Amino acid sequence: MRISILGAGAMGAALTIPYSEKNEVLLWGTEFDVPILEKLLRSEEHPRINAKVRADRILMPEEIEEALNADVIVLAISTEGVLSIFGRISDLIKDQAIISVTKGLAEINGEVYTIPEALWNEREDLKERIAAITGPSIAREVANKLPTHVVYSSVNSELLKTLKDSLETNYYRIKTSTDIIGCEMTSALKNVYSIAIAWISGVESRRNVTLNNLKGILVTQTLREISEIVKAMGGDEKTPYDLSGIGDIIATFRGGRNGMLGELLGRGYSTEEALKELERRGVGVVEGYVNAKRAYKLVENLDKKGKIRLEDLKLLNVINSVLYEGMSVDEALDIVF
Amino acid sequence: MRISILGAGAMGAALTIPYSEKNEVLLWGTEFDVPILEKLLRSEEHPRINAKVRADRILMPEEIEEALNADVIVLAISTEGVLSIFGRISDLIKDQAIISVTKGLAEINGEVYTIPEALWNEREDLKERIAAITGPSIAREVANKLPTHVVYSSVNSELLKTLKDSLETNYYRIKTSTDIIGCEMTSALKNVYSIAIAWISGVESRRNVTLNNLKGILVTQTLREISEIVKAMGGDEKTPYDLSGIGDIIATFRGGRNGMLGELLGRGYSTEEALKELERRGVGVVEGYVNAKRAYKLVENLDKKGKIRLEDLKLLNVINSVLYEGMSVDEALDIVF
Repeated sequence: MRISILGAGAMGAALTIPYSEKNEVLLWGTEFDVPILEKLLRSEEHPRINAKVRADRILMPEEIEEALNADVIVLAISTEGVLSIFGRISDLIKDQAIISVTKGLAEINGEVYTIPEALWNEREDLKERIAAITGPSIAREVANKLPTHVVYSSVNSELLKTLKDSLETNYYRIKTSTDIIGCEMTSALKNVYSIAIAWISGVESRRNVTLNNLKGILVTQTLREISEIVKAMGGDEKTPYDLSGIGDIIATFRGGRNGMLGELLGRGYSTEEALKELERRGVGVVEGYVNAKRAYKLVENLDKKGKIRLEDLKLLNVINSVLYEGMSVDEALDIVF
Repeated sequence: MRISILGAGAMGAALTIPYSEKNEVLLWGTEFDVPILEKLLRSEEHPRINAKVRADRILMPEEIEEALNADVIVLAISTEGVLSIFGRISDLIKDQAIISVTKGLAEINGEVYTIPEALWNEREDLKERIAAITGPSIAREVANKLPTHVVYSSVNSELLKTLKDSLETNYYRIKTSTDIIGCEMTSALKNVYSIAIAWISGVESRRNVTLNNLKGILVTQTLREISEIVKAMGGDEKTPYDLSGIGDIIATFRGGRNGMLGELLGRGYSTEEALKELERRGVGVVEGYVNAKRAYKLVENLDKKGKIRLEDLKLLNVINSVLYEGMSVDEALDIVF
């Protein structure tokens, strides 16, 4: 098959490695990716994955039409960019399959959706042609052929079978699930709750204690709340307890941008100060930060429909209060405890 | 109430702190505890919890009869010691409630039991009077009044209510569960599987890579297998996905004796070499090591009864092979992956 990956960030670049084992692979980058694309064209390593990509062609932003000439289109673009880029290319998408890599939530006219839902709301015919990737997959490890299991989810089991057959390798194993809502919701929410889990490292540094018991409580509570939300959305309440939830939480336990933000908040920084500090360190957009507001909105909407009680989700409530209403992490932890 | 804690190790000593908030507390030690008891009698800190105990009396081994004159007896003795000590005191136990802290499995005439089961098999009248403690509770953090949630489980809901009312404090919160089999089995098996989770840190050092994705896979697989075993034992398959399982795994993620053993195996030590190295470092009995053999035996027995298929528990199988049959960790990880 010909696989075209849109987005030359860490995950888009990493996927060229397993995908090229059995397929022709194109890697296309957005305007923001140009400096990286130039490096890749000179056969240099991708700076964020410590590996060279393995693409048959590297395509520049203006070569988008060529990029769409493929059997499978992989959307590996940030939450903030994916829908506008999709808008630009939607007319050129005929019968290609689509793999969504973007983890996040989109707010459209006051309603909150996972990315696959937002895409198929635009184009209903896509519902059967979209699959999403979740589960523990640090891009650098995928790129270096280190052992990885991921979950491909779709409402279409046939599509899942085709994708698994073409894309699985001996180091990149693909599990399949028809619970795309549960998988995507789990994955997006995990990034939000990761901020709170990381508070603890910040508090540990500030107070010079270990709080492992509290960390156990927070991760357990995270899984309970994500499971409640997934269930209210019509997904499988067990999904958070498998690779897409706990597996990913374990793999990303030590960090990421959400973790950095959470740790600074735990140390006593205000949200504003923490975001400024991350900017100073050259850290890009913290997706969990924007997604937290959307997650809260999503649950508010579900509550209005009588599908969940927002007040029962203690941890989500205090995440919102800390990020957007100036509550201190100490107060937040007291409430959750 | 008068609470008598038998065993002056880290957890027995730590529990004196929350228990003494509303109760009279006695702390009794075995022959092995004498050097610690002498420190405690001199009001020194307990060496393993960095805190002073808060007991109304410290009792020496020969004062066992006085220790049993209490409303609640807490068994905080190692797996290897608990049944023989229980045998010595069984006749003196009348209507006291018993709290079992010991995490482990006991093999009796070829059958494998959790500690509470082994106790009530000896004395059926105890079944209604036993509760067990599971969940994330690092002793040092409990002793230092750092936030902890634990699970008290028992077949007797009335007993759970009484214990919660008397023993809960504002830093030591008690959740209750009637799934004592599920809680205890989860907790004992967690120590066994922790050895395998720690292999990864050893392999990471040896090969100078990170394997976070693989860690996510192994923890997910651990929970799946424990859940299967709990279900086959008649417990609640969801129990491993709450505080007693994932909560405890997160809290103890960085170490403990099982972790040290696992890491050495991952670095390439044989089991014999690893145990020798731990002895050299002054590390005491590695409970997960002896429990692993029992866990395997337990599942063999369940398989014979048609309640589970041993071969489906890939991780338990390779844990057994690495610990007892000389399989290398690399081969084991290949099989599980």
